[in-house]
Amino acid sequence: MSNINAPLAQGEISAPTIELIHRHRSIRRYKSDPVSSELVETIVAAAQRSSTSSNLQTYSVVAVTDPTKRHRLAELCGNQRHIREAPVFLAWCADWHRLARACEIQGYRPVTNYVESFLIAAVDAAIAMQTAALAAESLGLGMCFIGGIRNDPAAVAELLQLPQLVFPISGMTLGWPAEEPIFKPRLPLKAVLHWEHYDTSREDEALREYDRIMQETGIYKGRQVTVKEGEPEHETYGWLEHSARRASQPARTHLRRVLQEMGFDLE
Amino acid sequence: MSNINAPLAQGEISAPTIELIHRHRSIRRYKSDPVSSELVETIVAAAQRSSTSSNLQTYSVVAVTDPTKRHRLAELCGNQRHIREAPVFLAWCADWHRLARACEIQGYRPVTNYVESFLIAAVDAAIAMQTAALAAESLGLGMCFIGGIRNDPAAVAELLQLPQLVFPISGMTLGWPAEEPIFKPRLPLKAVLHWEHYDTSREDEALREYDRIMQETGIYKGRQVTVKEGEPEHETYGWLEHSARRASQPARTHLRRVLQEMGFDLE
Repeated sequence: MSNINAPLAQGEISAPTIELIHRHRSIRRYKSDPVSSELVETIVAAAQRSSTSSNLQTYSVVAVTDPTKRHRLAELCGNQRHIREAPVFLAWCADWHRLARACEIQGYRPVTNYVESFLIAAVDAAIAMQTAALAAESLGLGMCFIGGIRNDPAAVAELLQLPQLVFPISGMTLGWPAEEPIFKPRLPLKAVLHWEHYDTSREDEALREYDRIMQETGIYKGRQVTVKEGEPEHETYGWLEHSARRASQPARTHLRRVLQEMGFDLE
Repeated sequence: MSNINAPLAQGEISAPTIELIHRHRSIRRYKSDPVSSELVETIVAAAQRSSTSSNLQTYSVVAVTDPTKRHRLAELCGNQRHIREAPVFLAWCADWHRLARACEIQGYRPVTNYVESFLIAAVDAAIAMQTAALAAESLGLGMCFIGGIRNDPAAVAELLQLPQLVFPISGMTLGWPAEEPIFKPRLPLKAVLHWEHYDTSREDEALREYDRIMQETGIYKGRQVTVKEGEPEHETYGWLEHSARRASQPARTHLRRVLQEMGFDLE
């Protein structure tokens, strides 16, 4: 076996990639400097080395640099300024079009109508795009996933000329960072990692501990509560209230219809 | 800005993490040496630093080391020998249970019945598990995703005591590699990466080029075609036939029903 990745000595469980992973922050302000097509190719080629179910590689990515198109994408994805500003927008898509073509060439009929058909492609796309994120960050680039690409997937499909059976899972802005955002604390490990079986016994303790930490960061701001001279104040709250508000709002309720129109029946 | 990740000089577009990504192979044979709980914690803590939609962190992971449980998981996931042999099995799950608890504490009603509700959690889980994969590989460990966890998700949920709204997206075997598999070629970059819009004009060329390459590897073997003295021969084919056969087979057709039973209506 190669020793390049030899296990580390006890007490120093780390590695360059783990250090890189811990430096991740989503970047929402970019310099105007371009990102070369060679860099984008390097990043997508790296993403291609990721695991993919049965080597079917059921994903594609559309790289958009054209400013007019990026402005339109920004409108479609919730008017996020960094989509207009980042030199590159990557649209990561679940892609059964290529498999359907393989079936056509070989004389088979593709089966795309089950939840599993779509899920396998969505997971392939998500795995590839996260590898791309880390590859980009290892080159000094910044990125941010854009779930807003699912706000109006039909319009995105029209803009990017996506054929049937190609559905945008997530966007990604890509560029040279012009900000150094704070590190957002995550849930305590014990809330996410379970041993041998799922254990809810320490859940409330973990959630309340994390809630306090997030409350103290002041990251989550809600409605304006008072107005001082030119200095509006907003209510702040912790992760529980932030998450409960999000989780209780119906979001993107059209996806089932759009997916059906694109060829994924989710039976 | 920090210079730790300064862009590389022209002509040497790489970085330690990109090199690590390019060394990835799924590992299906493991040494019997254990993987310490500290290593698993390091890997999952790294996964937690990944992007997650609105910081909702809608995923969990169950780490299984108990041999009896791993044998049962192997049976449930398609009888893959490496699930029995790898010292650790990680079950990566889409998790809305925690969000539902946050809603309960704060007095909101969680909305879990849309495709988007499930998709956001599936993508969060896939992003986290791929970060975990790279973190594990950077420590010299080997891993393999186990889509077979979706063969019988209800039985897996019972075995791992997953509560409602927790659905296993993928398993992962984890251990010290005892094999050095070949690198599987991937589709040509031009088949996966599109510029400005999705372009099918070079698709067939790319697919046939890749088909030839995969045919030459002899990786895809089908039915037994002749029998020499104790040496059965199998038909070999390329990626087109491999993929067309897979894509034309209904697979895991029960997922919609199981997801509904778990609380995800996919409306």
